[in-house]
Amino acid sequence: MFRVGEFGYRFPETSSDTFRRWTERTSPANWIPSIVKTLRATLTALFIVTAVSIIAAPAKRPPNIVLLFADDAGYADFGFQGSREFRTPHLDRLAAEGIRFSQGYVSASVCGPSRAGLMTGRYQQRFGYHENNVPGYMSEVSAADGPEMGLPVEEKTMGDYLKARGYRTAVFGKWHLGGADRFHPLRRGFDEFYGFRGGDRDYFPFRNEPSDAMRKMERGFGQFEEHEGYLTDVLAEEACGFIERHADRPFFVYLAFNAVHTPMQATPEDLEQFPELTGKRRELAAMTLALDRACGRVLDTLERLGLEENTLVVFTNDNGGPSDKNASDNSPLSGTKSNHLEGGIRVPYLVRWPAQLPAGVVYDKPVITLDLLPTFLAAAGAGADEIEALPLDGVNLLPYLQGKRDDAPHDILFWKKGVRAAVRSGQWKLIRFPDRPAMLFDIEQDPSELHDLAGAHPDLVKELFYKLYQWEMQLERPRWMLKTQFEKYDIDRMDAYWPIGRK
Amino acid sequence: MFRVGEFGYRFPETSSDTFRRWTERTSPANWIPSIVKTLRATLTALFIVTAVSIIAAPAKRPPNIVLLFADDAGYADFGFQGSREFRTPHLDRLAAEGIRFSQGYVSASVCGPSRAGLMTGRYQQRFGYHENNVPGYMSEVSAADGPEMGLPVEEKTMGDYLKARGYRTAVFGKWHLGGADRFHPLRRGFDEFYGFRGGDRDYFPFRNEPSDAMRKMERGFGQFEEHEGYLTDVLAEEACGFIERHADRPFFVYLAFNAVHTPMQATPEDLEQFPELTGKRRELAAMTLALDRACGRVLDTLERLGLEENTLVVFTNDNGGPSDKNASDNSPLSGTKSNHLEGGIRVPYLVRWPAQLPAGVVYDKPVITLDLLPTFLAAAGAGADEIEALPLDGVNLLPYLQGKRDDAPHDILFWKKGVRAAVRSGQWKLIRFPDRPAMLFDIEQDPSELHDLAGAHPDLVKELFYKLYQWEMQLERPRWMLKTQFEKYDIDRMDAYWPIGRK
Repeated sequence: MFRVGEFGYRFPETSSDTFRRWTERTSPANWIPSIVKTLRATLTALFIVTAVSIIAAPAKRPPNIVLLFADDAGYADFGFQGSREFRTPHLDRLAAEGIRFSQGYVSASVCGPSRAGLMTGRYQQRFGYHENNVPGYMSEVSAADGPEMGLPVEEKTMGDYLKARGYRTAVFGKWHLGGADRFHPLRRGFDEFYGFRGGDRDYFPFRNEPSDAMRKMERGFGQFEEHEGYLTDVLAEEACGFIERHADRPFFVYLAFNAVHTPMQATPEDLEQFPELTGKRRELAAMTLALDRACGRVLDTLERLGLEENTLVVFTNDNGGPSDKNASDNSPLSGTKSNHLEGGIRVPYLVRWPAQLPAGVVYDKPVITLDLLPTFLAAAGAGADEIEALPLDGVNLLPYLQGKRDDAPHDILFWKKGVRAAVRSGQWKLIRFPDRPAMLFDIEQDPSELHDLAGAHPDLVKELFYKLYQWEMQLERPRWMLKTQFEKYDIDRMDAYWPIGRK
Repeated sequence: MFRVGEFGYRFPETSSDTFRRWTERTSPANWIPSIVKTLRATLTALFIVTAVSIIAAPAKRPPNIVLLFADDAGYADFGFQGSREFRTPHLDRLAAEGIRFSQGYVSASVCGPSRAGLMTGRYQQRFGYHENNVPGYMSEVSAADGPEMGLPVEEKTMGDYLKARGYRTAVFGKWHLGGADRFHPLRRGFDEFYGFRGGDRDYFPFRNEPSDAMRKMERGFGQFEEHEGYLTDVLAEEACGFIERHADRPFFVYLAFNAVHTPMQATPEDLEQFPELTGKRRELAAMTLALDRACGRVLDTLERLGLEENTLVVFTNDNGGPSDKNASDNSPLSGTKSNHLEGGIRVPYLVRWPAQLPAGVVYDKPVITLDLLPTFLAAAGAGADEIEALPLDGVNLLPYLQGKRDDAPHDILFWKKGVRAAVRSGQWKLIRFPDRPAMLFDIEQDPSELHDLAGAHPDLVKELFYKLYQWEMQLERPRWMLKTQFEKYDIDRMDAYWPIGRK
């Protein structure tokens, strides 16, 4: 039987008003959100399912899609994630009006591979995108380096898929999927671009030519044009301009902030907002405030243009916070960017689509950013068969979020960089290390990964090990490789941010 | 105190005569080979040490060095290894006149990397030579492929080192260290070459141009000239000719048979010698008989020229037998070529140097083919300081074989291909797998690797894991990579030849 509360939703105490608003909108019943034990309530719930099913049929106009993507943010560093230090009122509102994923994963713990998975809906290792593509960090025997490290042109992106469905598509900000011309956003399914091809850059305009051309701001293809002002604000302004110009037709905006990646650069005004903080932590708070303001600006534009109701907005982040670099806080998770502890791969993750999805709820089954592409396609009207036929690892989340399915979207999820790898199935997570025996954690009981249960469940360890290997056997070998020393760096950083790590 | 029997020697019952001959030659005492318990015997033994020390001082003429190197032979497939099926009288004689290593390892379980380690005296992964260089088997994203996969020109070979010491150097047979001209033996420290650049070829002359030029027989540089007859015999003939031409000065012959690698091709005459065998096993026996005859021909030439006494002869093999391919038998070891069980990395291994080393004994501490380069250098007169200053992983074995040192030549040994790796320290061996938890074996008690003791020794497992990782952090990334499917092939083959493997 269908019962509210069985779909993986957890209703936070503070969100009952929001949830009630949504149920009132989608059902004529005067439904009370509590454990439904009576026949009347059961019938009401069934009515909701029916209503949602009708609503879920493709709307006449497909929704706009806005993907707000942060960079290197800490898991704990948002109001909606529980921060009492950082202020993110606009994103908190987005969370209140949408769904927050409490177990939202990325497919890699570093920027480039995570974005390659995001853009393709596929485990990026399938096409050899195993390691971060960072010029200057690569082994001298790496097959590719510099601008040649990019998303293979055979792979289709979110831009390709949505453009084919009639969307107007744009990227603003950080690309990091290849600096060579053939990898350029305008050749990968996007109509417009204002951003930079590489993986990081200054927030203020370069006054002199940067050493790496991939750091230069570029409008469209090849027109290099530094911005004026603070980049986080400028990217939002560009996105808003695009939305205004294309309000009359479905659009897809991929707004890929470099915030809050290093360099640590904030405006004096934003820094003044955090007199109680010091050092990098203060800079990060100020950069995050700007990030939130920029997201709010986009949300305000949608509201002002009357597009809010039928725009699917996602906010998430590419990987765990690199606490040693930008003072980000991933608590209560252990680990950081570049390792496979939860702090490296579990991220803040919000979805809002007022016309189709509930508000103010927490979805607590594991999902991954690979799911966004098929979810976007389904929202845009693609049929289940059509999506099923694509070579994707992600799944369409809409049926899960709309309460039509109460099973888990994924039986199993995988991560890998070299020898290091992880596999998540049900509450269990096995981590394979190069330097110590594999460990097993019950992530639902122990999200901080402090209690290795490998010794207690040897058969489960073997089973997950073998599944990991079976997945690995489907992957292409790495197209490029970092210097060996960065493997050590990653492991040292993991241990530094893990109470049970080697010190 | 020095006691015979404490140097890792085990005296086989059948070799006492041979051993006595050697002791009579090196000592005036009428010494009886038995457990020495009396003062007289102890003093005699001390005398032996002294005598050996004097002898070990560089001889006026450095020894000739002949390295007989087989390909893909099974651990059990020689008379001196206990075979009752195969006949290898000449190599059995070499064993009786020299030292047999009962724990002789190679640095890789496949041909190319093993030869790269052999030729350089260094773990080949240090310079990125992790995977077998087999054109047609490589991933399409591999940094190098075809003839470009070779021993980096920055690395010095046995040929380079010995040529610099005045040796005349030659390679006969299989090179497999790069097909491009810059990798050619004549550019890597060798004066003469008759062989083929690749990893395998027919034993009979090609009547038509082979598809891969690296399979063509080549004399010197670029003069392609197919042989007449059966290649194993021809290679020995070529080596004997070289020895005869250079009998008047120190020479180094690297006689790298492709025997007994596939294709399975034997002469009718050799096949007739094994009427009791069938199929591939019969072909292998015949090919091994030819291999033994070829080695015997070289040994006979040395004897005939009066060079036997001061020639250091080594016989060994590049990796464990690929039992599924050539019906080789690695018993009692588990595993095969291309995995890190003992059957993949422990090989038949003999050394004979009548002027300097004992005869008919078994040395049972772990050694590795990386040791040959420094051992050859020491034999050729290089001082300990000079060898110590080289970037080698091998050690000069002479002091161990001459009874001057009774510690183990190696505290620890390592193997690695991708996620799979192994580490050997004392009697312990840890194997790291991609698809199952790491296992720990007591190799001295359990050379067949049937009893995983990882659960019983968790601290030891952790210690060896960490040492493995510390070694890995010294390595270059792979210069080329096989297709993923061959990883599965390797693991399937391991399990097929391992009683406790997954079936």
